[in-house]
Amino acid sequence: MSLSNNKIKYIKSLKEKKFRNQYNCFVAEGEKLVFDLMETCKCQIVAALPEIISSRTDINAEDIIVASEVELNRATSLKTAPSVIAVFYQPQSDINEQYFNKSLSLVLEGVQDPGNVGTIVRIADWFGIHNIFCSYDCADVFNPKTVQATMGSIARVKVTYTDIIALINKSNKLPVYGTFLGGKNIYEESLSKNGLIVMGSEGKGISRAVEKLVTDRLFIPNFPTDIKSSESLNVAVATAITCSEFRRRHF
Amino acid sequence: MSLSNNKIKYIKSLKEKKFRNQYNCFVAEGEKLVFDLMETCKCQIVAALPEIISSRTDINAEDIIVASEVELNRATSLKTAPSVIAVFYQPQSDINEQYFNKSLSLVLEGVQDPGNVGTIVRIADWFGIHNIFCSYDCADVFNPKTVQATMGSIARVKVTYTDIIALINKSNKLPVYGTFLGGKNIYEESLSKNGLIVMGSEGKGISRAVEKLVTDRLFIPNFPTDIKSSESLNVAVATAITCSEFRRRHF
Repeated sequence: MSLSNNKIKYIKSLKEKKFRNQYNCFVAEGEKLVFDLMETCKCQIVAALPEIISSRTDINAEDIIVASEVELNRATSLKTAPSVIAVFYQPQSDINEQYFNKSLSLVLEGVQDPGNVGTIVRIADWFGIHNIFCSYDCADVFNPKTVQATMGSIARVKVTYTDIIALINKSNKLPVYGTFLGGKNIYEESLSKNGLIVMGSEGKGISRAVEKLVTDRLFIPNFPTDIKSSESLNVAVATAITCSEFRRRHF
Repeated sequence: MSLSNNKIKYIKSLKEKKFRNQYNCFVAEGEKLVFDLMETCKCQIVAALPEIISSRTDINAEDIIVASEVELNRATSLKTAPSVIAVFYQPQSDINEQYFNKSLSLVLEGVQDPGNVGTIVRIADWFGIHNIFCSYDCADVFNPKTVQATMGSIARVKVTYTDIIALINKSNKLPVYGTFLGGKNIYEESLSKNGLIVMGSEGKGISRAVEKLVTDRLFIPNFPTDIKSSESLNVAVATAITCSEFRRRHF
């Protein structure tokens, strides 16, 4: 068995969002990332060098293909071909209500930069936040560069593209946190173990429509407060500090 | 007066680190950034549209040039030409000993990614940390993309490239903090108002040579601690959480 031209074409097509959405799939490359993902995501195709196929006992995919270096080199998006390339189904958006209600989730509104979305997935993973809900206009976490940049965190954090206003409205008993200039000092507020933490876009922050649904307005204070400093923190940096504060209280 | 070909050539040469080091200068573009910088950095050349030159009363430069759109367009590193392009001298590394001894400074060892260095400058600015010392192998903060990415923070935070081991050795009474796997829980440790916070490179962390000089080993705990999560946090993210913790104690 070998990696056919058609399959190479299919794998390469998944670099484009249009095709990722059409097939509801995404590509991951490299042994560590692929096998981390295989623990939690349904795998459609795994194409790997013969030594990988013969040595790994944990391969679980619909289609297992022994591939040559030349074939992997043609299919890769990386500079140097990895030993494994795999296609995974994008996780479905079914929410475990019970887990959702008792845990923290992140809600991203219009975060444009794929690097920021990837970094936020790693932050969520570090702090044990297993659900991220993205508005449809967020950067696509399933583009190949972002998948690789999450360094395996995408295997443990479920990223769902959804109507975030409908989501927040449905979660009507949960606190909804957002950071705003003029919000309350995050270091001093009581922060719950469950709820939604909304982060806004790089340029515009949280929209008015979403702001109306925020129940707890927070602010990361600059220091000292009386002199001129940065006008804002990068959204991934603000997410990191916010998540750290929530976890510190319940450590 | 107009922007000569020679000056355009000079400005463009400063895209390269070699020439930035040779002339000890760097370029900034855009009205807000240039005039923020002019408050704290010595300006060699400012080239701007006539309406800028006639309307701003705060121009302070050795060489003030009225430039046309066409000339600025030839000199810019940006996609669209700004109304102002300026050349600044890189800040000198003379340290105000008194301020240094009573304040927090960041020390970066081998941080490779210009984006990370730029983000760290913004974080330092937000948290009122006015000195960053970089090992010589860190990415150059004075490259045009990073200067623009700091969004003016580079005007308020002094970034000095230096022998960081010599620097730490000279600061012999100050606590030296570093984050390590197996360090003490940062949420629970007492953290001082002054000292050095060392952050290591993306791939390798803090070197053994620098580790020996660290007096307080810290760790940002993942959550929950008993299950698998990210292996590491991005260096800018770890810097943000660490700075936030220092400032929280002394707010």
